[in-house]
Amino acid sequence: MRHRFENHDLVTERASQLIDVTDDVLAVVARVYSPHTTCAVVINELEHGFAQDFAEFLDEVAPADGRYYRHDDLEIRTQGIEDDTAEFPNGHSHIRAGLLSSSSQTIPIVDGRLMLGRWQRVFFCELDRSRERKVFIQVMGE
Amino acid sequence: MRHRFENHDLVTERASQLIDVTDDVLAVVARVYSPHTTCAVVINELEHGFAQDFAEFLDEVAPADGRYYRHDDLEIRTQGIEDDTAEFPNGHSHIRAGLLSSSSQTIPIVDGRLMLGRWQRVFFCELDRSRERKVFIQVMGE
Amino acid sequence: MRHRFENHDLVTERASQLIDVTDDVLAVVARVYSPHTTCAVVINELEHGFAQDFAEFLDEVAPADGRYYRHDDLEIRTQGIEDDTAEFPNGHSHIRAGLLSSSSQTIPIVDGRLMLGRWQRVFFCELDRSRERKVFIQVMGE
Repeated sequence: MRHRFENHDLVTERASQLIDVTDDVLAVVARVYSPHTTCAVVINELEHGFAQDFAEFLDEVAPADGRYYRHDDLEIRTQGIEDDTAEFPNGHSHIRAGLLSSSSQTIPIVDGRLMLGRWQRVFFCELDRSRERKVFIQVMGE
Repeated sequence: MRHRFENHDLVTERASQLIDVTDDVLAVVARVYSPHTTCAVVINELEHGFAQDFAEFLDEVAPADGRYYRHDDLEIRTQGIEDDTAEFPNGHSHIRAGLLSSSSQTIPIVDGRLMLGRWQRVFFCELDRSRERKVFIQVMGE
Repeated sequence: MRHRFENHDLVTERASQLIDVTDDVLAVVARVYSPHTTCAVVINELEHGFAQDFAEFLDEVAPADGRYYRHDDLEIRTQGIEDDTAEFPNGHSHIRAGLLSSSSQTIPIVDGRLMLGRWQRVFFCELDRSRERKVFIQVMGE
């Protein structure tokens, strides 16, 4: 088994943005990993309507406004406080990440070919705001 | 490390059908992968009541009827249009797949034994309608 | 490729408890697996507010009380009946596990270092009540 590990830097533009990273992994395989607590890696179809449907769905399920999140309450919070917490509350993003629960996706390769289905693309999904992000590509092959 | 890769063809019968594919992977292991954008692979208990509970839950969270999906709006859609899109709108199926976000499940093997828990079975889950499907079984062992 | 497999026994204390198992895998890698049908493995931030937000969110999405689950209906149930089913109905736990759909998480390692992001921790998440549990740690390295 050979291994290769790559870090790809990203700058996301908005919440629920889906960034197609499929071509980044077309070399051999196999694992696309997000090292962030408010992002996800999802496999779905590349279709703008779906991307907006999914963004709206996440907005409804864990809204950014109109719901109380302890994570954003600086009166009680004691852990992981960053300078920007007050300015950029993101309790909803953590809930969305917990709900999707997919920091990574693994795709089989056969004969050097990623075994994605016809409509499948691999997306890095921003669940917070526009931020600098990384996506790790881990390649395993023979 | 040895590898083996198998494709198993399926015909699903209905939305939210759970097809137990556990025995297909009892040989060595380890990864059950769905190459479809409107299916999921889930690990849970084989119990019909749960299967129906889960189907109802998915119907409520992302209903097939009574909710607007851009993915199904042929007035605005430009990508991935198939002949059957008008006849079989499935925007809800894509949302369900995005929500579960589990195109695959990986199970450890020890001494050639799949380390599933007592109640765990591996299911291929149809999130659209009755369709011909594939499930990939990727086996890795020593 | 070298492999190592470990079982860690746990006793959970309450529903939605998040048990940080990150340090258990700091040795080499790579896969944290739950052999239970009413638990999940999630990667998120170690912050008590988030932990409570997530617990509340799961309570709302699939409430323990006030919703009918066929899984808990002993009038119709025929499979997997345990002595404690009547006393401890857990249909909601199975739905939560189905929703999160993450029996395992896999994390890349590079140079013997787990490539978790700055805020990421790996949690074993109890979705039922206080119970004795196991978590499997599968280590793969060169």
